Amino acid sequence: QIDGDRLWDTLMEMAKIGPGIAGGNNRQTLTDADGEGRRLFQSWCEAAGLTMGVDTMGDMFARREGTDPDALPVYVGSHLDTQPTGGKYDGVLGVLAGLEIIRSLNDLGVKTRHPIVVVNWTNEEGSRFAPAMLASGVFAGMHDEAWAKERKDAGGKSFGEELRRISWEGDEPVGQRKMKAFFELHIEQGPILEDEGIDIGVVTHGQGLYWLEVTLTGKESHTGSTPMYKRRNAGLGMARVIELVHEVAMYYQPDAVGAVGHMDAYPNSRNIIAGRTTFTIDIRSPSKETLDAMREQIEDGIDLIAEALDIDVSIDEVGHFDPVTFDAGCVKAVRDAAEALGYSHRDIVSGAGHDACWINRVAPTAMVMCPCVDGLSHNEAEEITTEWAAAGANVLMRAVVETAGI
Amino acid sequence: QIDGDRLWDTLMEMAKIGPGIAGGNNRQTLTDADGEGRRLFQSWCEAAGLTMGVDTMGDMFARREGTDPDALPVYVGSHLDTQPTGGKYDGVLGVLAGLEIIRSLNDLGVKTRHPIVVVNWTNEEGSRFAPAMLASGVFAGMHDEAWAKERKDAGGKSFGEELRRISWEGDEPVGQRKMKAFFELHIEQGPILEDEGIDIGVVTHGQGLYWLEVTLTGKESHTGSTPMYKRRNAGLGMARVIELVHEVAMYYQPDAVGAVGHMDAYPNSRNIIAGRTTFTIDIRSPSKETLDAMREQIEDGIDLIAEALDIDVSIDEVGHFDPVTFDAGCVKAVRDAAEALGYSHRDIVSGAGHDACWINRVAPTAMVMCPCVDGLSHNEAEEITTEWAAAGANVLMRAVVETAGI
Ligand SMILES: NC(=O)NCCC(=O)O
Ligand SMILES: NC(=O)NCCC(=O)O
Repeated sequence: QIDGDRLWDTLMEMAKIGPGIAGGNNRQTLTDADGEGRRLFQSWCEAAGLTMGVDTMGDMFARREGTDPDALPVYVGSHLDTQPTGGKYDGVLGVLAGLEIIRSLNDLGVKTRHPIVVVNWTNEEGSRFAPAMLASGVFAGMHDEAWAKERKDAGGKSFGEELRRISWEGDEPVGQRKMKAFFELHIEQGPILEDEGIDIGVVTHGQGLYWLEVTLTGKESHTGSTPMYKRRNAGLGMARVIELVHEVAMYYQPDAVGAVGHMDAYPNSRNIIAGRTTFTIDIRSPSKETLDAMREQIEDGIDLIAEALDIDVSIDEVGHFDPVTFDAGCVKAVRDAAEALGYSHRDIVSGAGHDACWINRVAPTAMVMCPCVDGLSHNEAEEITTEWAAAGANVLMRAVVETAGI
Repeated sequence: QIDGDRLWDTLMEMAKIGPGIAGGNNRQTLTDADGEGRRLFQSWCEAAGLTMGVDTMGDMFARREGTDPDALPVYVGSHLDTQPTGGKYDGVLGVLAGLEIIRSLNDLGVKTRHPIVVVNWTNEEGSRFAPAMLASGVFAGMHDEAWAKERKDAGGKSFGEELRRISWEGDEPVGQRKMKAFFELHIEQGPILEDEGIDIGVVTHGQGLYWLEVTLTGKESHTGSTPMYKRRNAGLGMARVIELVHEVAMYYQPDAVGAVGHMDAYPNSRNIIAGRTTFTIDIRSPSKETLDAMREQIEDGIDLIAEALDIDVSIDEVGHFDPVTFDAGCVKAVRDAAEALGYSHRDIVSGAGHDACWINRVAPTAMVMCPCVDGLSHNEAEEITTEWAAAGANVLMRAVVETAGI
């Protein structure tokens, strides 16, 4: 059993770095605050006797030796970066619960046969640099490293530049580590567990996703003196696409979601018809068939909208992963752990993307979920209880230790 | 007759200040570039023997004495500020044509009975500080000066602060000047004159306008893991309102226009449902009845949209003027001038707002319009020909001189 108070205190310590404006965090990837969070995590790992390795994508690996020098390590972790208006637990809980497992094993004087490595993956959120789960994607061989380092934020700074600027580009090549298994604890970010009063979600699947960055180009002109028939209104085009994305997602209920969260209009003046809009469509489904059908319907719809408004379209895929089925053995380890510890549990599909979704392609992987208040996440008001956090960490510890062997 | 080449050269000189990124201008009100443009205009006025007065709103009045010391001056002018991505002629033509009239009268050695004052009104565009035509509105007693000075730009800087910063807050009280008449030359900013091959628009009326700044407040949450039924999507709400504004304007064709050019989403992250959106509705009509009906329908529609999406609404009127009927005598002076000079002309309604619309409330006022290529304005590609500019300035000169008397 982990120490719930210590885990909570550690979460609260980390939350002091990169404070938000409404009680949450703004510790976006590769900012100074991210660098500071990483240094704090490193100091904790060193105090717990772990050895830190950092790869060229900035992923951090803190290793506790096992008793069998030839055994593959069991990995556990998540991410320390946050949304610009993010919560204190999204990602952070999974990393610090990994650390708490180590501290608890140290306290108990227990050695596992397989080493245990606590990992912090770089740029999971994808808010500053798309796509999300960028570094775990490179690790899993899904993205080219050089391409990943060229990803740019809204201010034009590249991932590679910023990683070097905060001095977290390690020299270990990415993706060479072999894993016996990878476990990730994460808050649900949805309402199911809380609504059903269940302690633990055993994550069997993850939704697939497309992020489509759309640029519509019309013609800037005067809102007052341009006749309606002469307008090439890229703002109206964006509005119609936002509505279309919603309608397509509603059509596939309950097996799909869709929204536009990022949207920019240019030149964004009250009395200028927008000449250009750029926005990102986010569509997801647990079914690959549905996901691909949604994409096709949306792309067809955009063409019709653009034709009707006499505007030009370009669409760039800036994120994509297929739906994921987690490893049956690892999933069973999580379910068994919850059962053995007497927690109520249910199988669940992850609505969000996670580093575990990529790592699942190169190692047996599963996830543990704990509830969060009102299903709220990607909001500074994101909240969990100390009991939920402790239950999640206990299940994580049991699954990890069972897999690592004693 | 004015000197068309000199007028054109003067326009091109001014266009060097605050260059845009695509051949136009970014000389937004109360920026350093605006200050520089004002200094250049002042130096030209002084070289032409005019005396400059500046009021506490930064309005510039360059006076040429008349032969009758008791006669009220005839005012002529427009504005030197531009949109962030504006053209070289919108407003500027009206001010510099005023200067060209003075230069031509100087060349001819002609004295008028009434003095002539060339004016540059502050913050006509309304892009940086809403509402548009702010200083002429204060001059006409439509806005309180203290209120006007508290208007803030997107970065939170106030009109008053910025006016002082660029050192153009004069000490003359606003609105005390009495005018015999006011004439404003402006590019049409619409396609009618060019399409019909007509030289001069005799502006009889101006459309009325509402600017409604809407803030929708939903709830930030995760785009992937928040079920559709739990969303409070302020981005979707904005999209529906943008479409609504368009539909309402289409319903009243050809007597209305409507669009949203300014739109911001918060926190504007790819995987966060927008928790808040802020945008400005721009609706216009030459009929007050239609304008008010549009506003009511849009406000009712917004309530329905907000209810359906479980989001909160606040609406702030940040701009309003009623449709305008210009002074019959001044309009006739413009029509007679065009006729006498042998230019083709037609009566026209101004689609855009102009300083003349406010000044019309305190002095007999009219406007002269010249065509612009493809009706394009509020776009860096805004273009006119030297002939159109010269024709407009000639009509303006004749109307002004007829009114000022010789
Ligand atoms: N877990 C999480 O919020 N990941 C960010 C990527 C996504 O949008 O799903
Ligand atoms: N003429 C002009 O573009 N004025 C700006 C105010 C408006 O939007 O009508």
